[in-house]
Amino acid sequence: MANQSKQLDDIFGALSDATRRAIVMRLCKGEASVGELARPFEMALPSLMKHIRILESRGLVASEKHGRVRTCSLRTDSLATIEVWLAAQREIWERRLDRLEIYVAKLKKEEKANARKRKSR
Amino acid sequence: MANQSKQLDDIFGALSDATRRAIVMRLCKGEASVGELARPFEMALPSLMKHIRILESRGLVASEKHGRVRTCSLRTDSLATIEVWLAAQREIWERRLDRLEIYVAKLKKEEKANARKRKSR
Repeated sequence: MANQSKQLDDIFGALSDATRRAIVMRLCKGEASVGELARPFEMALPSLMKHIRILESRGLVASEKHGRVRTCSLRTDSLATIEVWLAAQREIWERRLDRLEIYVAKLKKEEKANARKRKSR
Repeated sequence: MANQSKQLDDIFGALSDATRRAIVMRLCKGEASVGELARPFEMALPSLMKHIRILESRGLVASEKHGRVRTCSLRTDSLATIEVWLAAQREIWERRLDRLEIYVAKLKKEEKANARKRKSR
């Protein structure tokens, strides 16, 4: 439980930066070398590498070095972890809305019944 | 676009803390006063208030003061914002997997056809 909480801290934290989200978005389309990842950013390579290392340490990205090229890929299971968390919260608040809806419908029905009674008096 | 990026930074950042996630989870069940929110945490009220203020400034929580009681509620549209972002990424990577599947199926078909040719020689 504590581990899962740490994992959620890590993943949400990693995604709280636009550059890191852009890297994740790029890797959704498939693997990419660090050079390919760097291309769209006006950023020095060491700064980009820092973001990639954060994504790696938080479990969102895996990388492998072949010769002089480091290739990065997305670990989609990490994104799935926060999707599951969000879906669980959505379920709770939707269940609450359902209960509210039932309650309002009941109130309306009672109100109609009372109005009918008043008319027939 | 820059605004939406800032909003995603804010929401992901707000959710990268276990106490703040617990507050969000509690508010999914319905409104709560600050006192009610504090109860399950072994935390001084000022520390909890700091988390609530972060959630408010990031657009995840709204609060209103009635007399001496401050009541908090969830702004579910903020959670929906990151759900939409995640769903968009999932769509991209699933589309990629679909393409890979089609490619592998094509390779298999060609391999079968070649094997048949080899046999009939």
